[in-house]
Amino acid sequence: MIIEEQTVSSDRIYTGKVISLKVDTVEVPKKGYQKREIIEHPGAVGIVAVTNDKKVVLVKQYRKAIEKAIWEIPAGKLEQGENPKDCALRELKEETGYTANNIRLIHKFYTSAGFSNQKVYVYLATELEEGEANLEDGEFLDVHEVELNEAYEMINKNDIEDAKTSIGLLLAKELL
Amino acid sequence: MIIEEQTVSSDRIYTGKVISLKVDTVEVPKKGYQKREIIEHPGAVGIVAVTNDKKVVLVKQYRKAIEKAIWEIPAGKLEQGENPKDCALRELKEETGYTANNIRLIHKFYTSAGFSNQKVYVYLATELEEGEANLEDGEFLDVHEVELNEAYEMINKNDIEDAKTSIGLLLAKELL
Repeated sequence: MIIEEQTVSSDRIYTGKVISLKVDTVEVPKKGYQKREIIEHPGAVGIVAVTNDKKVVLVKQYRKAIEKAIWEIPAGKLEQGENPKDCALRELKEETGYTANNIRLIHKFYTSAGFSNQKVYVYLATELEEGEANLEDGEFLDVHEVELNEAYEMINKNDIEDAKTSIGLLLAKELL
Repeated sequence: MIIEEQTVSSDRIYTGKVISLKVDTVEVPKKGYQKREIIEHPGAVGIVAVTNDKKVVLVKQYRKAIEKAIWEIPAGKLEQGENPKDCALRELKEETGYTANNIRLIHKFYTSAGFSNQKVYVYLATELEEGEANLEDGEFLDVHEVELNEAYEMINKNDIEDAKTSIGLLLAKELL
């Protein structure tokens, strides 16, 4: 049985630069009033970018939340009112320099529906043209191009351990 | 270039039942002091459970954070000190009634490394034995068994839009 939880009240705890936190009170049958801790996020994109010689573009970047650097596909947050496809083209260009002449949505997913509304749109970008990356000040990452088979092997070995990257590469494997 | 961000100070904003929020200050070259909003989560498991007649067990559950019900593999949070494999066996039993005689880790990933340390361990469970589910009071979900091909089709149609479920099913597809 699926029960829709109606909001009884909502407390805004924190409004930040990237995320916000609210705690909603809901009434649940057989359990009474319950708290739901919810992180609001503007949404994000990830781009599986495949070069003309069939390599996939990965970036390695330090992530403070997990205190280490991990492999990811190029990605970024939606700006206010921004279309996800425009965001994907913008982030790909900023992080890698590539302009994609062919881009399409291959999946969208919630990262952690248990506590967050964050939704990630995953694109497959091909027909790439090289150009200059333009990272923001204070943004640091390494860009690597790896053979598709090597990228799949990185998933199998779990050297890739990022949700959007695993999903994007596994789906691209079926599509390419 | 990869820059490890050293913590200058850390403010605890909220300590909740499921998640906690801290805001760390880090010093970034060319940018100065920056805030990092970080959600701490105990970690979770998801289980791709495949029945003896080759069906996969999916659950549909209302998720307050996204204000709707979505399809997921059985899943749950790690209890304090709990081993992920024990957690997977426990959650599978609680949500579906199944006991798995064969279970193995097939992937682990960060859901949102940009703002959260949440890590999800994904298991493949086979050689299932039926039993009684024992949902907690106030826990409501529908359990469905679907053909593997149907589950893959649900990903392709994006009727599945949950990170751990897409990753688990796509990897299981290669392993089964």
